[in-house]
Parts: sequence; structure tokens; C-alpha cells
Amino acid sequence: MKAAVVQQGQFSVTDLPVPTPGPGQLLLRVVRAGICGSDLHARSHTADLHALGRDLGYEAIMAPSQQVVMGHEFVGELVARGPRTKRTWKKGTRVVAVPMVKHGDEIHMTGFDIDAPGAYAEYLLVQEAFAFEVPDGVDDDKAAFTEPLAVAWHAVRRGSVGKRPAIVIGCGPIGLAVILMLKASGVKTIVASDLSPTRRELAKKCGASVVVDPREQSPWTAYELKGPVGSVTELADFGLSAIGAMRKVPLLPWGRVMRAGEKLGAAPAGPVIFECVGVPGILDQIFAAAPVRSRIVGVGVCMEPDTVRTTLALNKEHEIRFVFAYDPEEFQHALHLIASGKVDPSPLHTGTVGLGDLDQAFTDLGDPETHAKILVDPTL
Amino acid sequence: MKAAVVQQGQFSVTDLPVPTPGPGQLLLRVVRAGICGSDLHARSHTADLHALGRDLGYEAIMAPSQQVVMGHEFVGELVARGPRTKRTWKKGTRVVAVPMVKHGDEIHMTGFDIDAPGAYAEYLLVQEAFAFEVPDGVDDDKAAFTEPLAVAWHAVRRGSVGKRPAIVIGCGPIGLAVILMLKASGVKTIVASDLSPTRRELAKKCGASVVVDPREQSPWTAYELKGPVGSVTELADFGLSAIGAMRKVPLLPWGRVMRAGEKLGAAPAGPVIFECVGVPGILDQIFAAAPVRSRIVGVGVCMEPDTVRTTLALNKEHEIRFVFAYDPEEFQHALHLIASGKVDPSPLHTGTVGLGDLDQAFTDLGDPETHAKILVDPTL
Repeated sequence: MKAAVVQQGQFSVTDLPVPTPGPGQLLLRVVRAGICGSDLHARSHTADLHALGRDLGYEAIMAPSQQVVMGHEFVGELVARGPRTKRTWKKGTRVVAVPMVKHGDEIHMTGFDIDAPGAYAEYLLVQEAFAFEVPDGVDDDKAAFTEPLAVAWHAVRRGSVGKRPAIVIGCGPIGLAVILMLKASGVKTIVASDLSPTRRELAKKCGASVVVDPREQSPWTAYELKGPVGSVTELADFGLSAIGAMRKVPLLPWGRVMRAGEKLGAAPAGPVIFECVGVPGILDQIFAAAPVRSRIVGVGVCMEPDTVRTTLALNKEHEIRFVFAYDPEEFQHALHLIASGKVDPSPLHTGTVGLGDLDQAFTDLGDPETHAKILVDPTL
Repeated sequence: MKAAVVQQGQFSVTDLPVPTPGPGQLLLRVVRAGICGSDLHARSHTADLHALGRDLGYEAIMAPSQQVVMGHEFVGELVARGPRTKRTWKKGTRVVAVPMVKHGDEIHMTGFDIDAPGAYAEYLLVQEAFAFEVPDGVDDDKAAFTEPLAVAWHAVRRGSVGKRPAIVIGCGPIGLAVILMLKASGVKTIVASDLSPTRRELAKKCGASVVVDPREQSPWTAYELKGPVGSVTELADFGLSAIGAMRKVPLLPWGRVMRAGEKLGAAPAGPVIFECVGVPGILDQIFAAAPVRSRIVGVGVCMEPDTVRTTLALNKEHEIRFVFAYDPEEFQHALHLIASGKVDPSPLHTGTVGLGDLDQAFTDLGDPETHAKILVDPTL
């Protein structure tokens, strides 16, 4: 079969044997595969990723010297079943799957591991236990967004936004997916911040109620009543007491508690901030600028060590929840949200390429003005 | 009155006028004052503290050039009332208070602000609204621990430990106070880690169920079943699945969820780790070593920028709650716990000095083998 392999950061299309499904595995013909920010990281920081994986006890994680088939976002058609599979899906059934395969007791990450080749190929193996049927009427492109939407859904759930306003810092594919999921879960006030006008436009299409260019207006401006008041009244009302406290009382928890008569051990009262940039320095900026008792959801993957002033977070009693991936149930829920039409990832889809175009596609994705999510169609 | 003032990091005893209570204020004769780790920070990093305060909008915070009366942990006897005070306490009533005074709408931190002189003096002013009567039978030394125990109580409450094991990293006065409060709130498994044998002994006296010297045994060892099994069975049982997952599955949240059938959006399943050291590097060590989905309570104040590998926290879905100070209700609760005998801070009390001995006392507190908490008695 044709497969795009990456080695020392370079892609090439090569011929590989069609894999044979092992016990509990399914062979899929890849219909669409999505290019993820993690793929860009893994390609350009393979050595860092390898070191991190080993730190975490994942010996099999891809190394720069290896020939790896990447691609962990995909939809495929059922071609063959391995031994001890139980589902009665017909051949041709469209399937999405949590990108992990088992070898004995070990779980391998599809698309990041030579023992678990990914979806930048004509065929790939998935674990039947992690696979879900794509309902009829869901087009292939949308189905390919199941995985990134599951990531976003997990982040939104872990954020427990409730009635608080949400602020999304960084409108790359994951930031945009987070906005889609915030909107789908009924969050009223969604402030999105990105340097790119194109990304801000996409953020609006995905459901952001306010978009800001951080060079011109801080995402926190709304709290300071300087912003477009009409559009951010809730935020303003919400933030007023916090800012009042910030201005008058350095000891924000005390200050706010004594003013508002807040109950003991109350949940963070600030906004829920989704950090979807993942470059050094962003977290410290958020520590410094965010209102008291903000909950920060760490979604962006920062591959380099980051430096933060924890005293700022401490004095404001910020909370951080780092999130990673999703539960299989969340993956399935993301598929349901797409199928039901409650979530439409189409605005994110900015291009489709063939296996031979991956080098170019990875480069193009570096420019936020031209692309958000590029899908791969192995038949092109 | 006699007062110890600090200027450019040096203490000297000087004569200052006895302050006059303003509206809603009480004048207290200081009976005991405690020396806090924050005092050591503030004395040796005054410029950093000043910069931080201003970053947070607290213009009045102490500057190196100023003559400041520090001391924010104290018990005193009522001497005089200002206008518009309501309480009917007799003169001589012993009082503890949240160390803040109001000037108009502004709140100033007692002991960190020339406009709010602290308790290293014969007399100080407190806000009646923030003051609480010390019940008879509570001795002066214990009453002086109300403030640090309130800090610890707030940290423990924000940690929402529930049935999870608690791990206390660093057994300075606040780490020890956290152990006291964990014990008082019924937490069964409390692992305490400190380099100092004396501090480990104190940790045991305060209620730690396991103490470890991090040079010889990691606080996580319990999870790996290498520790003194008898004493850490619960921890071992608890941690087994997490470690099993850590060993076999790099994607811990996935791994654990799929093994344990954990419910969506479940609370962190790892231990609750109280970071009570506050030096650069500790947080990153915890990110690297802690089991999946640990909740880290950031109690230690790290005055310097800190460098962390957030990818470690992200892949393990750690959560961090930074905590600062307490609510007035928590302050009052700490007093109740002391008065009821549920919490006995006596093990922390390692010395009592006069106003003239502060320089020496601050130096002595640098040695964990000799001291934990030194109290000041202005009559000495």
C-alpha cells in the first residue's frame, strides 16, 4: 500500500505491506485523515517527544531515526477483521476509532509509534474495542474531525465552565474546536483571542461571542469595561467585583470573600480560560492578567520548558487543570455531536491533500492566514 | 512604645508612638507574635515583594527603604476602642485578628505596609470586624498560631482531599500546620517529605502516617510498593492501578479510564500533594514524579520565577490549585480547632524571644534542625 512515512522530519511516500489485523483488530481503508498540531510538533520536535514519552514510561514512542507512519485523526472503511472480533459491521462500514492499538498488555499510540502505524496511508489497523460506527449522513470530512473534537470536548468538560464566561487564548484547530464545544454545551459568553484576523473570523463562525486581537485589546479588557460593552455586558457585570477587588485589595481571595460573602471553599469565581497556544510565556501572561480565582485549562502543548511566576498565580488563587486526550466515551460523544448536527466542524476544514503533499501541507499549516485543518485523502 | 522595625533587611528596636485606634479599630497590647516564613521572604526579598505587590495593584506594600513594623501572626489584649466599634469586650480581653486594617475603602496588610504596622511591637491596631475573642483556657502561645493554622486550613479545604491520600512536600511551619489540619479533618494517609530529620520527627508528632527523606526514598515510593508496606498499605492499594497504568500506558488518563471504567469528568484520582517548599524546581519535580491526575495544592511561596515542563503535567492531567491566605471564617475555624483541643500546634513552637532578638531569630529559623516556629514576647 502507499504510505507517507516521516524520518528525521522529512516525509516520503513509500510502499508498505497492507497490515494484517491481529486479535481484536480491524483493518480499515483510510478515507480521510486529519493533520493535527501534535503531528507538527512530533515532526519538528521528534527528539523532544521521544524524551518526553520515555520520561512517562512509553518506551516505544517514535524516534527521529525511525520511519514512522503518522496520522491519528481518521475515518476509514472496514476491510477485514482479525481473530476474536465481535462486531457484525459489514465490510465498507465507516468507522472512527480512538487511535490506540494493543500489543498484548501494551497500548501503543497510533501514528506516534512504529508498532502502531497511522492514517497517512491507504490502510491502517484499529482496535475494535476503541472503534465506533459513523452514522449514515455524516460526510467523510466531518467524521474525520471526531478525534480533535473529542480532545476539545474533554477539555471543555474538565473546565466545568458552568455559568462562568469562557476565554479561549489561541484559535488554532484545537482552540476553534474548544469554541465549537463551548457553544454546543450552552456557554453564553465566549471570548476568543488570536493574533490572526483569519483565525478570529473562524472563531466567530465557531461561536465566539467576542473576538479580540491581543495586540489591540486584552482578552481581559471586558473585565475592565473598556471593551465593546454591548457584546460583553455579561462579562463586564461578571468581572466588575473581581476587578474592583483587584484594584482595591491585593489579597483578592480575602477581599472578594469579605465583600461578596462568598461561601467557604467556593469554586473559582473567575472565568475559565482555555490556553490553546502552547508556547513558552503564555501561561505566565495569563497568571499576570487573569482575574482572581481564574480556572485555566491547559490544552496547548508546550514542548519546551516554560517559566512562570507562581507568586502571581498564588496571590490570585488561580487553578490550572492540564488536560490530555479524552475518554472513549467522550470520543463517542464527539461523534454524536457531529452526527446530530449540534456541532459543525466545517469552518475548520481549509484544504484536502494527497499523501504526496504532506511536506507542503505541514509547511502551509504554519501560516494561520491560509489554513486551520488540512485533511488527507489517500486516493488523491 | 518599643517596636522592632526592619529597613534594608536589618532589624532595630526603636521607640514609636502608641497608635490611636481609628473608626472600627481596636488597640491591642501584643502578648505574642509569630515569625512567619513570609516574614523571612519579606525581609530578605523586600524588593521582589514590593514589585509583586505593585503588579497586583497593591501600591502601599513595603519597600526596602521604608521602616516597617512586621508581624502578622499575633494574639493581644484589648486596650482601647476607636469610634463606631460595636463589641462589648472588656479591656484585657484576648483577641486574635485577620491581619488587615482599613483606611477608607483600602485594605492594608498588617505587618507588610507602613500604613498598617505589625505585631513586632508592644501595641498594634486591628480591625474590629476582623477580630475574634480567644476563649479562656487557650494559652497565649497556642492562640498565636491561629493565623498560620488558618492558612493551612484554607489550603486543606481547597485541596478537597476526600478519601485520597495526602502527600506533604516540605515540613516547614506551614507544611507542619497542613499536616495538623489534614489529621484534624480525618485524612487517613498523610505522607510527609523533608530533608531534615528534626522536621520529619515534627511531622510525625503532627500526625503524618509516613515520613520520608526524599534523598533516600521518594514520597511516591509508597505507590510503587517499595516502601514500609505496613505503614503505607492504603497508599499502596490506592496507587497500584495508577502505577500499573503509568508503567504500561503512557496515556494515563485513557489508560486508567479504560481499565477502571472511571466516570466521565471524574475528579483527579491521584493523591493530593501539598507543595510547601516554595523554591524553584520543586513544581517540576512533582510534575515528573506524581501519579496520574494528581491534585497539587500550591502553598509554598516561590519568590523567583520557576521553570516547569508543562508537557509532563499535561500528559498526566495534573491539576494545580494555588492557595493564598484564608477566609475570615476559616480564620475563626482555626481558632475553634485550637480551643477545642482538636489541633495542638505546640510541637511547632520551638522558641520564644524578645523584640531585640529578631535578627538572630530570623537567622536561626534558617536552620530546620533547631527551629520551626519562634514566637515573640515583647515583654522579654
